Amino acid sequence: MTNSLRITGVRITPVAFRDPALLNAVGVHEPYALRAIVEVDTGEGLVGLGETYADEGHLRRLRAAADTLTGMDVYALGAMHSKVAEALAGDDGAAGSGLTGMITTSSAVDRVFSPFEVACLDLQGKAAGRPVSDLLGGAVRDSVPFSAYLFYKWAGHPGGEPDDWGAALDPDAVVAQARRMITEYGFTAVKLKGGVRPPEEEIEAVLALREALPGVPLRLDPNAAWSVPTSVAVARRLEGVLEYLEDPTPGLAGMAEVARQTSIPLATNMCVVAFEHLAPAVRQGAVQVVLSDHHYWGGLHRSKQLSGICDTFGMGLSMHSNSHLGISLAAMTHLAAATPHLTYACDTHWPWKTEEVVEPGVLEFTDGSVQVPKGPGLGVELDRDALARLHEQYLRCGQRNRDDTGYMKRTDPGYEKKSPRW
Amino acid sequence: MTNSLRITGVRITPVAFRDPALLNAVGVHEPYALRAIVEVDTGEGLVGLGETYADEGHLRRLRAAADTLTGMDVYALGAMHSKVAEALAGDDGAAGSGLTGMITTSSAVDRVFSPFEVACLDLQGKAAGRPVSDLLGGAVRDSVPFSAYLFYKWAGHPGGEPDDWGAALDPDAVVAQARRMITEYGFTAVKLKGGVRPPEEEIEAVLALREALPGVPLRLDPNAAWSVPTSVAVARRLEGVLEYLEDPTPGLAGMAEVARQTSIPLATNMCVVAFEHLAPAVRQGAVQVVLSDHHYWGGLHRSKQLSGICDTFGMGLSMHSNSHLGISLAAMTHLAAATPHLTYACDTHWPWKTEEVVEPGVLEFTDGSVQVPKGPGLGVELDRDALARLHEQYLRCGQRNRDDTGYMKRTDPGYEKKSPRW
Ligand SMILES: [Mg+2]
Ligand SMILES: [Mg+2]
Repeated sequence: MTNSLRITGVRITPVAFRDPALLNAVGVHEPYALRAIVEVDTGEGLVGLGETYADEGHLRRLRAAADTLTGMDVYALGAMHSKVAEALAGDDGAAGSGLTGMITTSSAVDRVFSPFEVACLDLQGKAAGRPVSDLLGGAVRDSVPFSAYLFYKWAGHPGGEPDDWGAALDPDAVVAQARRMITEYGFTAVKLKGGVRPPEEEIEAVLALREALPGVPLRLDPNAAWSVPTSVAVARRLEGVLEYLEDPTPGLAGMAEVARQTSIPLATNMCVVAFEHLAPAVRQGAVQVVLSDHHYWGGLHRSKQLSGICDTFGMGLSMHSNSHLGISLAAMTHLAAATPHLTYACDTHWPWKTEEVVEPGVLEFTDGSVQVPKGPGLGVELDRDALARLHEQYLRCGQRNRDDTGYMKRTDPGYEKKSPRW
Repeated sequence: MTNSLRITGVRITPVAFRDPALLNAVGVHEPYALRAIVEVDTGEGLVGLGETYADEGHLRRLRAAADTLTGMDVYALGAMHSKVAEALAGDDGAAGSGLTGMITTSSAVDRVFSPFEVACLDLQGKAAGRPVSDLLGGAVRDSVPFSAYLFYKWAGHPGGEPDDWGAALDPDAVVAQARRMITEYGFTAVKLKGGVRPPEEEIEAVLALREALPGVPLRLDPNAAWSVPTSVAVARRLEGVLEYLEDPTPGLAGMAEVARQTSIPLATNMCVVAFEHLAPAVRQGAVQVVLSDHHYWGGLHRSKQLSGICDTFGMGLSMHSNSHLGISLAAMTHLAAATPHLTYACDTHWPWKTEEVVEPGVLEFTDGSVQVPKGPGLGVELDRDALARLHEQYLRCGQRNRDDTGYMKRTDPGYEKKSPRW
């Protein structure tokens, strides 16, 4: 009477792709970014794709969860979430989130469940002959706007060749990076990853961007590198300049205090990263914009849920990014397309990436936006040669757990992780 | 590359089915309950079903919305919601909600969108060969528990024959009604519609139920018939007896005041009936349980959204019912099955109904629960003869807008609608 589509097995393949020496509040990106590619097999020959972090603790949890999913129907997402929770019972989820120690309070269950949910939606869409966006209520926009993601950076990795982008350590170089990114991708919004240079220099960089790019919405994200007084001082200098200020200071109470003292909306992907953080955030008036991220909010359905909560409680919604490949970009694009309450361009690290695991041709940037893939499911296909190559690279590269701080210390032994730093 | 499934037309058929003389805080049920059956046609020969209110204002809005939906894809639910909003722009939505004047502040757009969304999900499920519960994340329970819905009632309609249930105007009759309903349906929770007799009598009725049915969860719903002091006085008498007290008093502020003075959780389907009510309700701590109802919360996806909000903000979730037919019961059952955060048995008027529009055999009560239909879509089929018969009955019966108060006045000319009454 109804069609069954059951999971016959799961393959999890860690990969490594080259990443520039991008600086942030806790250190610097290592030579390779790590990801895990999740393939969910069914008896019908259909394969569903997911993409997630690849730190060792996370890989261990993915495998523990995967073992319990065989035999489940690909539509049984609610039951699958419970299965993952059972598989992880007793695991505190702290180690190996793959999130640089910056988003450690996200839910391990939601992080582990996410790539399986995305893969099952890919399968549902392939079986029904419909794009994933349709399974989420249908696209309300044909293309999804992303923002340019600027980084302070070194010219190359220590001991290596300079990369194609060169160094960016002062306002002029930041502006040059923005101009190139806009020329190549057409971005209509710009974000600077801050928390790297002293606040005064980052203010200068933002003001230089404002002058160079009149009318372009700007954001600054120091990843909680500032105290409350520093945050308030910076915010006051940048009122009317930034569309939002992202995580100036650690914790809900600090954010709420900064919010009371500035008119700039405060955004976060650090102090509201799980459903349990929303009620206290609303009660304290701590944030005005939440950056969703299906990788740790428990997949696409739960991220839509988050959007509805933001809409209901008067908060804006944007989208967070970690270094990612095409499966994630496809999922982010379907989700954003099917999310009516998406009030800002989404983040993506895409331009920093020179290697890929999906077949080219589907995910292209035009005017800073990505067209929603129209094929069944996610609409992207795995390039199996590329997958094998990036898996080999993972095996060879020696990196197993993201450690921006440790990598920075190899260049600057006196470097310390500190929040707030200024 | 992908399959298209577009709306070629919509049929809206008002029907009337016999309803007993059930008493409530605003009057008495008229001889017929009105519903509208919505059929959404596609070029593929598939027909999707929805069910909603049938007051004239609502029928007019349904038709205005239906006219704009032709040609739309049945997966384009987000875009469809916007279309309905456009079609109703300028309509204040106040008249003809079909909700007895008790839930007038619900969203007209969500009320009108709902049956179309349900019909489109029925179509999506039929096309994919999957039950609607699967499209909502999959059933997390095989069957859905409902509660017995007790009413004070007259033996029959004025001038008519007594119905099969007879009069219920005192505690003994209420207990007898409960016993029969439990015997016939196996209900494991019991709700009494209150706001009819003076509070002291309703307390007596609840205490009689408690004695007669030890261990069975009990609820009382006076539909805002009481002042704050009366509500507090009743609540104090029934602490430890009721699992929740539903809408004792009008408005969020009053509810919040009652909540502060009792330990009984307060439930509502009157002061939180649209997304815009949730933030103030949470801020004021006004309610502990929300009764969802896909008919006015904008369909099944948005009702799941409501459930997620209740989960996130520490509120329980139950389900509200108006007099309804099998299409609605199927939709309610799929929704409840796919809603992990459903913390109470759902309401239903089902046992009071003697006429139906869907083919028998799918929706059966066992131990007070309904098995989730396993067929594609909603899993129910329209009985076209029954539909024609109940439409004829609608044309003949003369009722066009639900008016419990007006009907009561024909028997008791001095009757007045009053909230609070005591
Ligand atoms: Mg951030
Ligand atoms: Mg009620």
